[in-house]
Amino acid sequence: MNYSDLVKQINAKRSMLCVGLDSDLNKIPPHLLKLDDPIFEFNKVIIDSTANYSVAFKPNLAFYESLGLEGWKSLEKTISYINERYPEIFTIADAKRGDIGNTSKMYAKAFFDKLNFDAVTVAPYMGKDSISPFLEYENKWVIVLALTSNQGAFDFQFMKDEYTGKQLFEQVLESSSQWGTKENMMYVVGATKAEMLKEIRQIVPEHFLLVPGIGAQGGDLDAVVENGATKDKGLIINSSRGIIYADKTEKFALISELKAMELQNEMAKYF
Amino acid sequence: MNYSDLVKQINAKRSMLCVGLDSDLNKIPPHLLKLDDPIFEFNKVIIDSTANYSVAFKPNLAFYESLGLEGWKSLEKTISYINERYPEIFTIADAKRGDIGNTSKMYAKAFFDKLNFDAVTVAPYMGKDSISPFLEYENKWVIVLALTSNQGAFDFQFMKDEYTGKQLFEQVLESSSQWGTKENMMYVVGATKAEMLKEIRQIVPEHFLLVPGIGAQGGDLDAVVENGATKDKGLIINSSRGIIYADKTEKFALISELKAMELQNEMAKYF
Repeated sequence: MNYSDLVKQINAKRSMLCVGLDSDLNKIPPHLLKLDDPIFEFNKVIIDSTANYSVAFKPNLAFYESLGLEGWKSLEKTISYINERYPEIFTIADAKRGDIGNTSKMYAKAFFDKLNFDAVTVAPYMGKDSISPFLEYENKWVIVLALTSNQGAFDFQFMKDEYTGKQLFEQVLESSSQWGTKENMMYVVGATKAEMLKEIRQIVPEHFLLVPGIGAQGGDLDAVVENGATKDKGLIINSSRGIIYADKTEKFALISELKAMELQNEMAKYF
Repeated sequence: MNYSDLVKQINAKRSMLCVGLDSDLNKIPPHLLKLDDPIFEFNKVIIDSTANYSVAFKPNLAFYESLGLEGWKSLEKTISYINERYPEIFTIADAKRGDIGNTSKMYAKAFFDKLNFDAVTVAPYMGKDSISPFLEYENKWVIVLALTSNQGAFDFQFMKDEYTGKQLFEQVLESSSQWGTKENMMYVVGATKAEMLKEIRQIVPEHFLLVPGIGAQGGDLDAVVENGATKDKGLIINSSRGIIYADKTEKFALISELKAMELQNEMAKYF
């Protein structure tokens, strides 16, 4: 998907919502467990009930890999289902990969050629040649971890460079934005750091940001949009648990639809 | 596998050799391509012909994921084959994973419970809670990226902290060595940075180091061992292409055995 189609979808739906498919056998409605492929059946329902309100779907690979071969099958079926039924929706493999150049090339092949995702998340520790192979695909995207939403973000990401005075995440933004463009590169910036979005926008004024950590209640949404939005919005805001695990009964489709709609309604006021 | 069994194996074989199973359909001997599962058949031959000379096998996940479901099947068969036939050999999932705590837990489940690897490589960008879940498994290991062997290592890993004067990779070593012990944590340190091993040994005097980047000719082996060895050796030295792609004919088993033997012979002189 290219930049302008993504922006078009965002404006048409008046939504920046990404639904995180962190699908876990221990958390999905128990009545699904008797089906042949409970994870795929769960995803299908969630996708169908939230597609009108969201612009992106983001399976986190860890949940699928933890089930081995069966999990990989569920993932393949899920991405095919989205691509066939909702080709306008942006798809993100939340994989946090990254390796030496030749090996990152194989990861790009895995997620872009084989699975046909639009985007993949990548950790920046190994530098340019770990990220560049993902940029060689037309209309595909790499989403680089900049400032994550977890406690461990404070361990290394705020380290301040002796010479430039810049913190590691700022250095990552500054360097990597030279390797790609706003047409093929985005950044992960946690919503728990919403106050920092202003500073981040000085370094990457136009790139899309993928923002995890927004609750179903939309608590930080104002701060995120106020500090982080561009003229094209430039934000993809993820919610996982608040939507997909909002209910565990036979009515879960309806409840997750309501939760997605609530968030989209919150977002619509910024359009 | 625990620390003392690993050391025992190293001493018994007088080897620190790890064979990297970066198995690629475009590089394996072409006569294998007509078989049902060429990647697994290739791995089986490489494993059998090098097991006497090596202490570890390390499939890099990217190569398997790039083949989709078929690749994941080949990986499962490969790790099962090693565990059944060579239970004394240390197995490393070179996956370079890492996510927020709850998600890293799922990766630990994938590689330790589901696939039964001894160790998994992890990128440190997301800090403590991305690494800790791997440490909760008894006799399993996390191998943290410290100083990688690629050009991109220079982009961020050498950034110097304003307050402590330490470089990022030193900070990673120092912090993370507080989270685990020499019994459940190792570090990736590229052989291309052999001269830095002395400095690294001041921070982590006893942890095992996984050292990629040694050629078949054993060029840097002296420097690596001289600067990096502990009393228990404390080194797992990887070679991939130099061994597994040394020959593409029907004789590739013999040639890869010879290459592994050559490297083991080089290593034996340090015992």
